[in-house]
Amino acid sequence: MGNPQETLPPQGIPRDYTPGVHGGQDVDLDPEWVVGFVDGEGCFYVGIYAHPEMKLGYQVLPEFRVVQHERDLQVLYALKRFFRCGVVRRNREDRYELRIRNLSCLERVVSFFEAHPLKTKKNADFKRFARIVRWMQEGQHLTPEGLMRIVETALPMNRADKAKAQEILAELQKRHGRRDSPPPAEMSG
Amino acid sequence: MGNPQETLPPQGIPRDYTPGVHGGQDVDLDPEWVVGFVDGEGCFYVGIYAHPEMKLGYQVLPEFRVVQHERDLQVLYALKRFFRCGVVRRNREDRYELRIRNLSCLERVVSFFEAHPLKTKKNADFKRFARIVRWMQEGQHLTPEGLMRIVETALPMNRADKAKAQEILAELQKRHGRRDSPPPAEMSG
Repeated sequence: MGNPQETLPPQGIPRDYTPGVHGGQDVDLDPEWVVGFVDGEGCFYVGIYAHPEMKLGYQVLPEFRVVQHERDLQVLYALKRFFRCGVVRRNREDRYELRIRNLSCLERVVSFFEAHPLKTKKNADFKRFARIVRWMQEGQHLTPEGLMRIVETALPMNRADKAKAQEILAELQKRHGRRDSPPPAEMSG
Repeated sequence: MGNPQETLPPQGIPRDYTPGVHGGQDVDLDPEWVVGFVDGEGCFYVGIYAHPEMKLGYQVLPEFRVVQHERDLQVLYALKRFFRCGVVRRNREDRYELRIRNLSCLERVVSFFEAHPLKTKKNADFKRFARIVRWMQEGQHLTPEGLMRIVETALPMNRADKAKAQEILAELQKRHGRRDSPPPAEMSG
């Protein structure tokens, strides 16, 4: 992924090029257009799920999502080409989504929105999201302390799942104890 | 309004400057950000209402609207400054809107989105909206032929009011007859 501060060049032939739909008509996106559209339609979400096969019993799943009516499927493909990442799939009924879950891809999304900040209050969610993505790249979700920090950071974001996330946090604190000292700078993976 | 093809310069001191809220923090908007945000959140609407004081019995009311949760009120004020037009008001509950109804202001909005096209299918609604705004500036809504053409053009836009608009069109056709010949180039006001 190189330097995380670099801005994403939307030019060039993307690796996972998807032909445009609606008559093959491609839409080229301006970075500021992408920021405006995501300010309106984008979602930064961090799911935390019980997962018995994970060492700590929980899986952290950050995802970036844009949902559109099927009439604007070509915009989702344009965003996919812009970020050179993600999957366009049905959301429900006549709605489709671009979903980006791959960590390296999310790092690219994060770098882009750091270089081109969102203008709505969604930026507050984004900043928490960015922190969590970076921590996960460092493997912090694999340590009890890191996982607890991630769940705490995600708490104000996941409004629908707030009660569930709080339960998970309480469970982790019960199992692994609450750290009163500052978190260590380095963590074992 | 001068040349309708000119793009709107968002710079300079706007006539109806509104101080930023949330600590007076102003947000400067990039034109492409505005396009992206309106692609997501904007609405081009043409209301057609029975109005006994109008000569033809109906009022045509085009409006451009952006609705946001109150947490993003500052973005509505930024858009108001950008277009140097409109009113920020409560929509319902915790939602606010920027609403632009003034015809000269709508001409400015139309010129902007002609120079910076929307990328979603909302552009189809916009094109009908633009035609109607221009016709109204020529006074065509004051002639039976022009009014019928406006209602016909608005029909595919106003999905919720489609049945009502169709009723109005039928009523106008009954009163004023249906024109089979091409519409006259000039109309009496």
